[in-house]
Amino acid sequence: MRGSVFVGTSLDGFIARANGALDFLPDDPEPHGFEEFLASVDALVWGRNTYDVVQEFGTWFYGEKPVFVLSSRDLKEPPAGAVVTRMSGSPADVVSALEERGIDHIYVDGGDTIQQFIRAGFIQRLIITRIPVLIGSGIPLFGALDHDIALTHVATRHYRSGLVQSEYQIES
Amino acid sequence: MRGSVFVGTSLDGFIARANGALDFLPDDPEPHGFEEFLASVDALVWGRNTYDVVQEFGTWFYGEKPVFVLSSRDLKEPPAGAVVTRMSGSPADVVSALEERGIDHIYVDGGDTIQQFIRAGFIQRLIITRIPVLIGSGIPLFGALDHDIALTHVATRHYRSGLVQSEYQIES
Repeated sequence: MRGSVFVGTSLDGFIARANGALDFLPDDPEPHGFEEFLASVDALVWGRNTYDVVQEFGTWFYGEKPVFVLSSRDLKEPPAGAVVTRMSGSPADVVSALEERGIDHIYVDGGDTIQQFIRAGFIQRLIITRIPVLIGSGIPLFGALDHDIALTHVATRHYRSGLVQSEYQIES
Repeated sequence: MRGSVFVGTSLDGFIARANGALDFLPDDPEPHGFEEFLASVDALVWGRNTYDVVQEFGTWFYGEKPVFVLSSRDLKEPPAGAVVTRMSGSPADVVSALEERGIDHIYVDGGDTIQQFIRAGFIQRLIITRIPVLIGSGIPLFGALDHDIALTHVATRHYRSGLVQSEYQIES
């Protein structure tokens, strides 16, 4: 199993405001590699809050790619066409369950969920797109660790809008 | 008066560990523009903790460039040849006092001090060099804000060591 993260953050490291709002993301028509990234994964693993925010967008960007939402509570009705399954347990439990379904590459999203999967050693690739704004508070991409995690820089690209996208690998 | 920041951070946004240690900075022989940056400023403005850490390095990288240390307590003896002055007050007080001395461009360093000067609108240029490591906790580069601050991306460079340096302007 491989785990990847593809996420936008403010320059001060927040993936959303405290209430989940993403209003600081620029309306940039230039593609940032998301389509290619999404095509490369077998399934998505989201935290509950991410699902609740995305479910309200009115647009579902993930086609029929299976989305596993980590929650102990029932989920709101998924949008038409979406393939959404609720799941719970530790990252190791989730990875085992997904491997049994033949899933080899997951796209992990949501602040808490990303942090848990990083801590448990299940993330090997991080693609972080920095938005040139400081928002001061919100949901942080990264959290506490019990040891340093070294990464290898793979590539950095920047866009006319001022976005800077860096790709890293975590050696496991 | 112009204010600039030139700082290295872990990928998770810390400029030092909680105890001030900088052991996660790589020993990279490739130059990252620091000499040119230092030559462009008239004076340095540091928080007390930055001074205490740098004063113990045994090496003073700043020549006879004046360093103003913000503290209400007496400073430890500066290294031989260093030009160090203690100062206190709000960022606006400090900027006024330095302008009276004919200083036009300051290099602001230290987590708290950078945050205070950003909040007060005295930083126009940020050069942030990201080190490819997650350390989990420490002294954050950025802090709380009472409103968003938009930046303009100027340039991004990356180095063989995996460092990624991005330069931003804050419009004032």
